[in-house]
Amino acid sequence: MLTYDLRQADGPLYTYLYQCIKSDIIAGKLQPGEKLPSKRTFANNQGVSTITIQNAYDQLVSEGYVETQPKRGYFVADVDVVAGKGKRADINYEIHIPQEDEEEILYDLSKNEINPENFPFSIWAKVSRAVISEQKEALMKKAPTGGVRELREAIASHLYSFRGMMVDPNQIVIGAGTEYLYGIIIQLLGLEKIYSIENPGYRKLEKIYRQKGVKCKFASMDEKGILVSELERVKTDVAHICPNHHFPTGITMPASRRYEILAWANEKQGRYIIEDDYDSEFRMSGKPLPPLFSIDGCEKVIYMNTFSKSLTPTIRISYMVLPVHLANRFYETMSFYACTVSNFEQYTLARFIKEGYFEKHINRMRLYYKRQRRNIIKTIEDSWLGKVSTIIENDSGLHFLLKLENKKANEEFQAYLKKHKIKVNALSDYQWGQGVADEYVYIVNYSPLGTGAMSFR
Amino acid sequence: MLTYDLRQADGPLYTYLYQCIKSDIIAGKLQPGEKLPSKRTFANNQGVSTITIQNAYDQLVSEGYVETQPKRGYFVADVDVVAGKGKRADINYEIHIPQEDEEEILYDLSKNEINPENFPFSIWAKVSRAVISEQKEALMKKAPTGGVRELREAIASHLYSFRGMMVDPNQIVIGAGTEYLYGIIIQLLGLEKIYSIENPGYRKLEKIYRQKGVKCKFASMDEKGILVSELERVKTDVAHICPNHHFPTGITMPASRRYEILAWANEKQGRYIIEDDYDSEFRMSGKPLPPLFSIDGCEKVIYMNTFSKSLTPTIRISYMVLPVHLANRFYETMSFYACTVSNFEQYTLARFIKEGYFEKHINRMRLYYKRQRRNIIKTIEDSWLGKVSTIIENDSGLHFLLKLENKKANEEFQAYLKKHKIKVNALSDYQWGQGVADEYVYIVNYSPLGTGAMSFR
Repeated sequence: MLTYDLRQADGPLYTYLYQCIKSDIIAGKLQPGEKLPSKRTFANNQGVSTITIQNAYDQLVSEGYVETQPKRGYFVADVDVVAGKGKRADINYEIHIPQEDEEEILYDLSKNEINPENFPFSIWAKVSRAVISEQKEALMKKAPTGGVRELREAIASHLYSFRGMMVDPNQIVIGAGTEYLYGIIIQLLGLEKIYSIENPGYRKLEKIYRQKGVKCKFASMDEKGILVSELERVKTDVAHICPNHHFPTGITMPASRRYEILAWANEKQGRYIIEDDYDSEFRMSGKPLPPLFSIDGCEKVIYMNTFSKSLTPTIRISYMVLPVHLANRFYETMSFYACTVSNFEQYTLARFIKEGYFEKHINRMRLYYKRQRRNIIKTIEDSWLGKVSTIIENDSGLHFLLKLENKKANEEFQAYLKKHKIKVNALSDYQWGQGVADEYVYIVNYSPLGTGAMSFR
Repeated sequence: MLTYDLRQADGPLYTYLYQCIKSDIIAGKLQPGEKLPSKRTFANNQGVSTITIQNAYDQLVSEGYVETQPKRGYFVADVDVVAGKGKRADINYEIHIPQEDEEEILYDLSKNEINPENFPFSIWAKVSRAVISEQKEALMKKAPTGGVRELREAIASHLYSFRGMMVDPNQIVIGAGTEYLYGIIIQLLGLEKIYSIENPGYRKLEKIYRQKGVKCKFASMDEKGILVSELERVKTDVAHICPNHHFPTGITMPASRRYEILAWANEKQGRYIIEDDYDSEFRMSGKPLPPLFSIDGCEKVIYMNTFSKSLTPTIRISYMVLPVHLANRFYETMSFYACTVSNFEQYTLARFIKEGYFEKHINRMRLYYKRQRRNIIKTIEDSWLGKVSTIIENDSGLHFLLKLENKKANEEFQAYLKKHKIKVNALSDYQWGQGVADEYVYIVNYSPLGTGAMSFR
């Protein structure tokens, strides 16, 4: 008769019994087909109640270690332990996390991180608290695939006042970052399309498209932006461009080129333009050009923007505005998807925009960046660096270009960066293959710096 | 000489002048190549400062409507208005949003929405406030692709205490919903794989896989879960299963079948199992089976879980645990992706778990659901419905099955649903093609109901 020493039980007796029997089954001490004692006999033998035995048996049955046969009792099941026992010798169990940078960096001007001083924490907290206390029902309600109505309305009205765009909130699709939205575009347009990105340009885009399973080519630019001849050369279906403030060159595509690109898109069905308007909020002076989306009369332009630059990249909220026929295709084919942004943050951002905090924040940041940019440019110009370099900028966005005049100056600059632990990317880092990108040109993302933090001495 | 009536200007004069000239260029009144007046002459003529003219010209130049020729002056550019003028007649501008349901519904038992009474709003708000006031730096810092360290550690320790799983936090990948994570899995394993889902099962999965560009087949189940013979029949590479509490049948896969499935995966390189453990927190009694992930010694199982059931689906936080070699592949090939969940919510959830609120919440909800389930089952059993139906459940999860005894009973039940505006899905809604799913079986997601809200009279 099966007997276990219940004094060793640490917890409910039935759990302990279950554990003991299971171990014996796995170890083979109890063989497949073997009959287990009846509940009453076993209970008497162990000096416990039949309920305890019942519970232990139930658990074993539910896990498949034991089978019941009606009116016959409990039997050990045939647990065919064919797989997964122990670790295989040929598997490597070490995880290798790529290290961002080996060297210590004091000033990282290779990317735009928001200085914590500049995020409106207290207002964000206040708005978020109000949302939690006043919109409980809405917070628990599944959002439509494209995002909650309030946020889409707030974005539509922001686009109207900031960019002169007239869009139906239903054309807006909210997603957890532009990278996610590119995936949605690929699903909308099909995996067989050829995407082109600007060269030089934001090279990560190429990785993203390739990783998501579509072809991605590079199309060269001239001083007006991407070339239609290049789009044709690489057989582009979908051109992903930043016509309003190209990264990294800072080029604004003039109207003539805009119409050329639209004409290119119109020549063939299935051609589209993704207009990436990532930093339009930070044009420092003058009136920005209307986006391509607004001058497109033929539903060829998908407009994309994000709150990464205007708020922080660590809140993952981006959006795109689809031409009507693509919005319809989106609702027809993808309504089953859940929106990827939390309701809590969608409602918070919607209020933040509606109550005017977003506009105030942008205005404040624009002034802040303008001052910061002026200080840094002046500091550079007044330093040794100013004597051997030129600054290329168009009073827009959160970066400018610094062009060293010759090889010697470039070497001095490199040594300076190393000595002061500064990380800056070169324009050529954004260039694929041999191209027009000048030598010795660097991209200075100045937003991570405080005002006047560096002296360039 | 170009002359405009500046009395009509509503705003800065330069903006108005810019507008006028631009309109004339677009309308063709100013022809390509035409020379514009010099700044001084134009300023004298209009009675404004040269700065005003300069600003207007600069804007026109930056937009490409005007070109400068060194030492010669300003000329109208060749704005080749080839595209995008006006709306094309053959485009449909109406957006059709699919309507969820035409009929009014009082009780929607077809899905699990969280009753707003049950979400721990005040604690969530408190924790989130603490995060905002104490972790500003961290909130602004780009999270690793897999998610912020604190949350991954919190999840690892939750998995250890709730599921007995030993995982390295670096094996955990956090994403904005399981649907997003399936996309990551597809990118990890390749687009050419064949995915299988359980039949009957969560049919939305099939749409998701298909939409993301991979083949998705149905593999039938018996009373122990998915059949290995079926996986082989449809040439599965990746089996997506819910072995711990199958939706909708409620089946828990016994140990014997688990080992069979693992053996199937081990037979061939490139085969994997996605273990969807979506509601493991709500096993009401007994000890749950260890997940497949834990008994897999050969790196074949990707474990997935979500906070949708345990907190709310409207906070989009899910995670997967990758076998080590896939974690390495993830870091090698996808480290450039940004994590799709906001830092604010990642840090909030991390604290919520670490400070014990999550465990308390789950315990409270488990009791709540247990009581609610008992009440509803009793109400059904005591009513006319109890006389013509059987309840099938295994004391787990947030749904049970209701089986009507015959066609007549089924018709009565249908009429009752209609009269009381109740929406319930049938088991056959989750069945693809002809299959084993019984007739007249319904899935009751009881969580949207309050305790004892329906009388079944």
